[in-house]
Amino acid sequence: MLALYFDGQPAIQEVPRPVPGDGEVLVRVHLAGVCRTDLEVLKGYHGFKGIMGHEFVGEVAGPEDSAWLGQRVVGEINIGCGACDLCRRGLAGHCRQRRVLGLKDHDGAFAQYLTLPAANLHAVPREVLEVLAIFTEPLAAALRVMEVAPVSPSTRVLVMGDGPLGLQVSWVMALSGADVHLAGHHPEHLALAAPRGVATFLSTDLPPGDYDIVVEASGSPSGLELALTRVRPRGTVVMKSTYVGRYPLDPAALVVPEVSLVGCRCGPFPGALRLLRDGRVDPRPLIERTFPLSRGLEALTYAQRPGGLKVLIDCREAD
Amino acid sequence: MLALYFDGQPAIQEVPRPVPGDGEVLVRVHLAGVCRTDLEVLKGYHGFKGIMGHEFVGEVAGPEDSAWLGQRVVGEINIGCGACDLCRRGLAGHCRQRRVLGLKDHDGAFAQYLTLPAANLHAVPREVLEVLAIFTEPLAAALRVMEVAPVSPSTRVLVMGDGPLGLQVSWVMALSGADVHLAGHHPEHLALAAPRGVATFLSTDLPPGDYDIVVEASGSPSGLELALTRVRPRGTVVMKSTYVGRYPLDPAALVVPEVSLVGCRCGPFPGALRLLRDGRVDPRPLIERTFPLSRGLEALTYAQRPGGLKVLIDCREAD
Repeated sequence: MLALYFDGQPAIQEVPRPVPGDGEVLVRVHLAGVCRTDLEVLKGYHGFKGIMGHEFVGEVAGPEDSAWLGQRVVGEINIGCGACDLCRRGLAGHCRQRRVLGLKDHDGAFAQYLTLPAANLHAVPREVLEVLAIFTEPLAAALRVMEVAPVSPSTRVLVMGDGPLGLQVSWVMALSGADVHLAGHHPEHLALAAPRGVATFLSTDLPPGDYDIVVEASGSPSGLELALTRVRPRGTVVMKSTYVGRYPLDPAALVVPEVSLVGCRCGPFPGALRLLRDGRVDPRPLIERTFPLSRGLEALTYAQRPGGLKVLIDCREAD
Repeated sequence: MLALYFDGQPAIQEVPRPVPGDGEVLVRVHLAGVCRTDLEVLKGYHGFKGIMGHEFVGEVAGPEDSAWLGQRVVGEINIGCGACDLCRRGLAGHCRQRRVLGLKDHDGAFAQYLTLPAANLHAVPREVLEVLAIFTEPLAAALRVMEVAPVSPSTRVLVMGDGPLGLQVSWVMALSGADVHLAGHHPEHLALAAPRGVATFLSTDLPPGDYDIVVEASGSPSGLELALTRVRPRGTVVMKSTYVGRYPLDPAALVVPEVSLVGCRCGPFPGALRLLRDGRVDPRPLIERTFPLSRGLEALTYAQRPGGLKVLIDCREAD
């Protein structure tokens, strides 16, 4: 099969079709999404080698006796060992021996086929178009913010960063009726949030504020600095994005105002699928271009443009 | 009256007895406690000038028509403006214009008399000896940890730092039946926790662990570094102590394991008074020496010994 393989350099190449192991299924990939983390892989993140990609929608193609056969699915990306204390406590996503689809010790989604444990799968409702389903994983990651920092219509929220992640976070938080502000550098991105009840600001023009929750989704060290000046005492700063380098944290900036700094990562697929099914979130305006898998290298290059949004890879066209 | 006044240097001197303003009471101070923060004041913390000290127990001595007259009291140390959005939301302790007893814009407790708003007072139950009541403020600060990081008998807790704060935090957390470990550098301090159901370790001998909650009460940058290696995924690191300097935080150390870093400061007096009244916590073993106010400078010097515990100042003896 065709795959986008990374081994220090990305390359489109023919590789053997993977064989599902015990408890695993074979998925024929329809669409895959390029995420910022994939671009980090290109820079050596995790020292990953293998088939890249972790956002996908596809159809179960094996084994023949699988109850999932023929089902359209999306899949959670963390594969726990199933035996350690964390897995046994329901924290398989944090298993220290975990493999991660397209990111750590498990081949990914930029290919005609992938394998995943059946336990990782979620059925895609018939009503959900594939160009919507492909957003299940990133939308779930956005929903995770609301699990660690619950909101209500009384909550004042600032989301920093107008990339796909920041936009999706602002959308889902605004659904709740919370007073959501989004700050970013790209007027054309901010324009995607304004019609959804989000007040938008260029980061350079952000007025003084005193937010209950600040979500750092800008991926820049200055974002965290600004977040800590904008959160109210006893408020929460949600750290959603990582970056290389260290942030010089003043302990008094947390202790004196009793601020919480909360890391968060992957989120709940069922809620994301329901929002997509019910049309409460429509991320399609985030899609900039779709490339066939055979042109996957172009897709990666295109996705690296500063201020880019979502790039998709159609893995069927290579059949 | 006699007072320990700081104006770049601490000095025992005669100053005018303070006059309570609107809503304030005059308190005759019986005992005061020296806190680590007082030692920071000596180094220039907050640029404070005035009468030092914020831990006290005393008796209300005026005004004549106060409902509190003659009542034995302890007092909360933050004085909000009463009018800003934070005060109106019940966060007077975080008012940006707040004054703080003996720490910011309000004379403190190392004196024969102090003034405080009556709203800051808590009556000391008859059964509570003054050598116990003097611990209300620091014990309340310890209880605050459990408000930001609730525990149950299933919770595994590591407290780092065996000073008075770390010891009191370990005691109150162990009351709940949680599995509490305490790490520090002083065997004689650790010995004060072991009989109270706390497992103790020299920091250098701390075995590997995977704690739900790690409380950083060591006041050293290496404490936070160690805390982040010992907290489990989705666990909480409570930052209780500040220090000068910045900690180089790796954002991935919070985001990937979804760890929370929670600052916390002052706590609830009523719970602290109840624990003292019921004998569930007895901090008297923390008392090393009591000095009369006239020898307050010696008290400060003594309190600065490395590895020191609690030093008290008896403000009645100067009468």
